[in-house]
Amino acid sequence: MLKTGRGAEAPPFLVMDVIAAANAAGRALPPGAPGILRMEVGQPSTGAPRGAAEAAIRALQAGAPMGYTEAFGLPSLRERISRHYAEHYGATVPARRIAVTVGASGAFPLAFLAAFDPGDRVAMAAPFYPPYANILTALGMRPVLLPCDANTRFQPTIGMLEQLDPLPDGLIVASPCNPAGTMLTPGELAAIAEWCHARGIRLISDEIYHGLSYGMAESTAAAFSESAVVVNSFSKYFSMTGWRIGWLVLPEDLLRPVECLAQNLFISAPHVAQLAAEAAFNCRPELEANKAAYARSRDVLLAGLPSAGLDCLAQADGAFYLWADVSALTRDSVAFAARMLAEAGIAATPGVDFDRERGSRFLRLSYCGAEDAMAEAPERIRRWLAR
Amino acid sequence: MLKTGRGAEAPPFLVMDVIAAANAAGRALPPGAPGILRMEVGQPSTGAPRGAAEAAIRALQAGAPMGYTEAFGLPSLRERISRHYAEHYGATVPARRIAVTVGASGAFPLAFLAAFDPGDRVAMAAPFYPPYANILTALGMRPVLLPCDANTRFQPTIGMLEQLDPLPDGLIVASPCNPAGTMLTPGELAAIAEWCHARGIRLISDEIYHGLSYGMAESTAAAFSESAVVVNSFSKYFSMTGWRIGWLVLPEDLLRPVECLAQNLFISAPHVAQLAAEAAFNCRPELEANKAAYARSRDVLLAGLPSAGLDCLAQADGAFYLWADVSALTRDSVAFAARMLAEAGIAATPGVDFDRERGSRFLRLSYCGAEDAMAEAPERIRRWLAR
Repeated sequence: MLKTGRGAEAPPFLVMDVIAAANAAGRALPPGAPGILRMEVGQPSTGAPRGAAEAAIRALQAGAPMGYTEAFGLPSLRERISRHYAEHYGATVPARRIAVTVGASGAFPLAFLAAFDPGDRVAMAAPFYPPYANILTALGMRPVLLPCDANTRFQPTIGMLEQLDPLPDGLIVASPCNPAGTMLTPGELAAIAEWCHARGIRLISDEIYHGLSYGMAESTAAAFSESAVVVNSFSKYFSMTGWRIGWLVLPEDLLRPVECLAQNLFISAPHVAQLAAEAAFNCRPELEANKAAYARSRDVLLAGLPSAGLDCLAQADGAFYLWADVSALTRDSVAFAARMLAEAGIAATPGVDFDRERGSRFLRLSYCGAEDAMAEAPERIRRWLAR
Repeated sequence: MLKTGRGAEAPPFLVMDVIAAANAAGRALPPGAPGILRMEVGQPSTGAPRGAAEAAIRALQAGAPMGYTEAFGLPSLRERISRHYAEHYGATVPARRIAVTVGASGAFPLAFLAAFDPGDRVAMAAPFYPPYANILTALGMRPVLLPCDANTRFQPTIGMLEQLDPLPDGLIVASPCNPAGTMLTPGELAAIAEWCHARGIRLISDEIYHGLSYGMAESTAAAFSESAVVVNSFSKYFSMTGWRIGWLVLPEDLLRPVECLAQNLFISAPHVAQLAAEAAFNCRPELEANKAAYARSRDVLLAGLPSAGLDCLAQADGAFYLWADVSALTRDSVAFAARMLAEAGIAATPGVDFDRERGSRFLRLSYCGAEDAMAEAPERIRRWLAR
């Protein structure tokens, strides 16, 4: 046996395994049986908006060669994203500071490598999106977890950060966050951004769920800090997961470093997907209709789940997740999720993927699936838990 | 100023800057002037084969949602690539050992992180494809350069490897290679693969230019070593650069580690591009016609360049590059390439991108551009050098 590298110890992103189990359960159903309710997936069932797909079709029909783009992406897409900051946030973000990436996933290694060194400590709330920690670890950096709960809406506070000794080299925040769906208020984000900047701590603000909030105002770290890195993507609000297009808003000092890293690690993001992404900005009615469906599913679940037996839910400000404290029902969310899949036909993600310490008492339920399926969930759970 | 990470010191992939200069020179031309001959780019001008683009169009027209695929790609594409190994090499490579990646670029970080640790030494011939060294360096690994020249067709030998003390942790070979276009014979590749395996040295075989060789037999390291990692892509022979689809053939011990890394770092390769890539295997006549055009351009250049004044060319067995020793004309290939662009209207890549020590005496000329443009090059160079 040859040796393997430290990267060979990267934990899986467990939800991928849950998806495989749900697929298998679906295939094993007898004909006519009610289908599996898919509440484990973090991707919209809707697909790209029609206008985005049609832009791709038109370009392909015209025989566009679809070569590499510049490492930071098509200038017209970068300009369009820049305009989005003006329109959506009233913030000035010049196109030259925008880097188009291979999804948000492709953005993280670029940002981490440019901003941090091996051994550097990067703080984040727990629960958290598992690849934050897994990518940092694969690159030799050290996640520092800030255990959060409903008292701070599962978000970090300056008080928690000040108790770290030494202070961390970086901080990742996400608002709305995955898995809890909770948000920082604009005032809280501004305060964290200014606190980080003043202390030379690099803030990475994951804004991938922007566009999907249900009442609370969205704000971007780009408006509050000239040293922050913003990560965003076309995968969630724009419903374009498999197209693999995201973007970074970069501070001036990281522009050339990230460009060089991107030239080497990615060359460019996929060309046809960049054309589709640009067109997606013109598909607001379809995208807002998707969002309205999530909002209705959220209302149905928030109204129906507590009386069905899942009564300890985080305040779901945005994204399309419910983070359910199931400690009254189980101390083993992996076994609980497996039973729920086998017995109730509902796939959900056990919390251990998002919080290694406390996740055995939590479950993540995603409501971006088909609206009628989501509406069935409370009654199925009620019947199952009543047995 | 906040601190930046070691990754912030990654050198650029200079050819990207040369492309920008050539674009600018083209825009500055007066109307009616002869155009710039583009011999700097490493991508075919042809675009994806028609059948590949049409498969993408059909899937998009049918409204396929184009979500994430499994981390290792669509099963049907992995099966098709597996069949390619049987058909093209007579080698048995099961689909489960094939990982679809975001281009070959996306394959390298996965392979390096799974196989090597920070500080590990990875050998490669010089000149070399710059991102090999730049990615390794960004990940804290150490490139070990084996200076090669025409005597070994710019390829490493076991003799060179045996002189390394200590032996390296890994070896990257590329056949045909970029920039020299030279190949290892099947016997040489087999011997290197066996030598590495016997010593616990991880072999990474970059086979991205397979399909584009002009006489010498192609062989895959997957046929010679059960511990080797093979990197390949749809960007060159299949002419699909901007679609960003490549693949790895993985040894058993790296399968799960690379899958976990891919789940975290990429989630999946672009979905629509995977569909197009699968269809590209059915486009042989178009792809062979592209190759025949490269072969004709190669013949024209090999026949015409020596009498035009570029008479010291590496033996161009494959790919679509000529590696020209211009030491009789200059000691500064960057200035030489800039003058050639300004005065002869020919863009080429100075060798310093590929060989930091000796590259100031070399130039890389790519002949994957339009055939009529390539045919013009010898006469333009002759007139320019005769001035």
